[in-house]
Amino acid sequence: MTKTIDLTDLREELAGSRLIVDPDVIEAYRRDQTLVVEPGHPVAVLVAESTQDVAAALRWADRCGIPVTPRGAGTSLAGGAAAADGGLVISLAKMTAIRELRAEDELAVVEAGVVTADLDRAAARHGLMYAPDPSSHEICTVGGNVATNAGGLRCVKYGVTRDAVLGLEVVLADGRVILTGRQTVKGVTGLDLTSLFVGSEGTLGIITAVTVRLRPRPRHPPVTVVGGFDTLRAAGDAVANIIRDGVDPSLLELLDGPTLRSIDEWKHLGLDGTEAMLIAQVDGSDADERVDEIESIFARNGSDTVAISSDEAEAAQLLEVRRLAYPAAERLGHTLVEDVGVPRSRLPQLLETIEQTGNRHSVTILTVAHAGDGNTHPTFVFEPTESGDAPPQVWAAADEIFRATLTLGGTLTGEHGVGLLKQRWLELELGADTVDVQRAIKQTLDPHKILNPGKAI
Amino acid sequence: MTKTIDLTDLREELAGSRLIVDPDVIEAYRRDQTLVVEPGHPVAVLVAESTQDVAAALRWADRCGIPVTPRGAGTSLAGGAAAADGGLVISLAKMTAIRELRAEDELAVVEAGVVTADLDRAAARHGLMYAPDPSSHEICTVGGNVATNAGGLRCVKYGVTRDAVLGLEVVLADGRVILTGRQTVKGVTGLDLTSLFVGSEGTLGIITAVTVRLRPRPRHPPVTVVGGFDTLRAAGDAVANIIRDGVDPSLLELLDGPTLRSIDEWKHLGLDGTEAMLIAQVDGSDADERVDEIESIFARNGSDTVAISSDEAEAAQLLEVRRLAYPAAERLGHTLVEDVGVPRSRLPQLLETIEQTGNRHSVTILTVAHAGDGNTHPTFVFEPTESGDAPPQVWAAADEIFRATLTLGGTLTGEHGVGLLKQRWLELELGADTVDVQRAIKQTLDPHKILNPGKAI
Repeated sequence: MTKTIDLTDLREELAGSRLIVDPDVIEAYRRDQTLVVEPGHPVAVLVAESTQDVAAALRWADRCGIPVTPRGAGTSLAGGAAAADGGLVISLAKMTAIRELRAEDELAVVEAGVVTADLDRAAARHGLMYAPDPSSHEICTVGGNVATNAGGLRCVKYGVTRDAVLGLEVVLADGRVILTGRQTVKGVTGLDLTSLFVGSEGTLGIITAVTVRLRPRPRHPPVTVVGGFDTLRAAGDAVANIIRDGVDPSLLELLDGPTLRSIDEWKHLGLDGTEAMLIAQVDGSDADERVDEIESIFARNGSDTVAISSDEAEAAQLLEVRRLAYPAAERLGHTLVEDVGVPRSRLPQLLETIEQTGNRHSVTILTVAHAGDGNTHPTFVFEPTESGDAPPQVWAAADEIFRATLTLGGTLTGEHGVGLLKQRWLELELGADTVDVQRAIKQTLDPHKILNPGKAI
Repeated sequence: MTKTIDLTDLREELAGSRLIVDPDVIEAYRRDQTLVVEPGHPVAVLVAESTQDVAAALRWADRCGIPVTPRGAGTSLAGGAAAADGGLVISLAKMTAIRELRAEDELAVVEAGVVTADLDRAAARHGLMYAPDPSSHEICTVGGNVATNAGGLRCVKYGVTRDAVLGLEVVLADGRVILTGRQTVKGVTGLDLTSLFVGSEGTLGIITAVTVRLRPRPRHPPVTVVGGFDTLRAAGDAVANIIRDGVDPSLLELLDGPTLRSIDEWKHLGLDGTEAMLIAQVDGSDADERVDEIESIFARNGSDTVAISSDEAEAAQLLEVRRLAYPAAERLGHTLVEDVGVPRSRLPQLLETIEQTGNRHSVTILTVAHAGDGNTHPTFVFEPTESGDAPPQVWAAADEIFRATLTLGGTLTGEHGVGLLKQRWLELELGADTVDVQRAIKQTLDPHKILNPGKAI
């Protein structure tokens, strides 16, 4: 695709400085964090400063049939922000205003480029919190979180991004700006367009601002409980016990043996022989009671080492091993971070399947899981092919794991999105008629197919 | 509209016994609980026994261009289930199977006709609960709750129906059956069709089954705290304190002076002189601590009478006065139960506006509110006109209250839906472009406009 695109009209509508056409600078906006996806070559990047900028750009792109790739911080792990060839990238990263924060109504109206952790810190100044906390919360943006319906660590208690979104400001494909949702916690006027745009990965419109729901900060800061287990099965049973007993942890993470070994080889934490680790947190005024319960469940399931934090700093420190999981994997080679989810009771079966599939294909897979909600990240480690892709045995193993996940009643993606990466398995999960309905809605909202083409659906 | 409709084809597809054509029996399926709406005269009623029944009926209706009105228990307060003239009513009330209840995964798959309280009781047998509890939960159905995204009393803590829905089985206008959503607590494969159908009031498809999320039952049964206040403003301030302090009540209801007087005239509870009452519940293992906090907040805001339940039976008994509110209003005349919502901090202003508007138009308005989420039910009491409608001053007062609600940043309907009742105000809240988008989606999914025409959007 080498058609020449005339940017004159677009320049006229925008202050020229915001439109980047220097190929070296454009390069920084082509990719997200998905190594195995090769993005296209966009012709320009708009660093939007206002909703009006985005509207002007979409009016132009829709008229000219130019594909548009919106991006926040570019932290997608599914190729959701990989640039379209010959298209326009619209970066929302400079739209960082917190337009409004109303503590008494526990809500804020923020622009799409606000960094997730910054929003939480702004809320904290009023005794509130913004609950969604993707692992990348210090760099990712609220707009990107909303576009992918991002999860995180504490969503086992506080829900995913969707659960924290009351309303949206969205620029439609033709440049019209609409508001969806509301500022009330309940409301059912008309169709739930807010939920339709949340997780739509930029394929239906570009989200420029978000009305988020804040919550009171927990009265008791989180306490961390860590347990090591001899077998994955024992850790899986402990997770099932915690859920069944209604312990309501605010975080419940699992690290498998290969992950622990990769961390131990690097950091020498003395994790040798541990085949699974669970890290739980509880908060709220009955935290102490719940810590005791978790400790006893861990012990009952044969956990030999249990550590409990005694203050907030230690609580964060004990969680540190979880944060080391990805960097430890990256030390071993290129990585493909996967994101399958199953009903919670089936987590042990999924973990076994992942282990066996890795062995059968001689592929190194390190697995961590948001065990409390069955959302599992098998990370494939490999030497890339010449084209930068993963070798065939990685894709063969991934394919088997995806199919096994669906057989277990699960989903292809718990929180990262479909992006470019999972297009080919989409229909396996959704069925042809459901995909049809999704594409019909896409066609209605984006008749010229300019919005993040080839992604999500 | 007097066209003759040939039911032969439909009869052939269905066992004839399920198709009701006797006008006397049809009469029982024409109306819902919205007194001010005059429904049409349907030509037949299908009492569906299976998803296949619904699919066959929609294939037929779509082919013949016959309007279809789905209904659960017919408890809508917005005319959502008022029958279309010359159409087919499809009752889901006989589809009452709980197809699956998996305690270990905290989910159930239930048919649309399951009564809401029955589902909660089934969950209770496994130590779980189905949280959504519309006031009509002993008679309304899960399908109807999903179609309207019904709220309830304890959604201030546990969320609305949407928050308890993981996935749906939906029959599309052309008779195709699709599954949306999943059995996992997290999942982002494709567009969120589940949320699109939730609250769509039967205009996009007919929901035949629902995968619901269950939760552990609270460890401590609810404790009820009741406080009487001299002014609405004082009660409003107490609500604001409870929210700001993060007390996290599982229920927080407000009754205004006229409501209390209507109950007192009937039941002689000695409520004379009380201008507002708050009823709060807390549950969970730190319930006692939270009861103390509420008591102290009530006292600080001048509450003169505080009652606290000492056991579960008493907790239910203290809530009884809330359940008397509607029957007490109905003793006074015909009623129109309204359903506006505002950001919580603006509740006192809304309540004042309602009072002043009622006085100005000489209309009796009794107000109860789910104060914890700003969702307010002003109930208009009147003598109907000859046609059964409310007199003009009632509509004038309602119109003013709707407009004031929107000015306060609120919504026309917190939990009842738009139905037939609020069509004419829809665009005021949503804006023309947002309504356009909603109608375009409707057109895509229901090109022959057979699904609950004239409702919701």
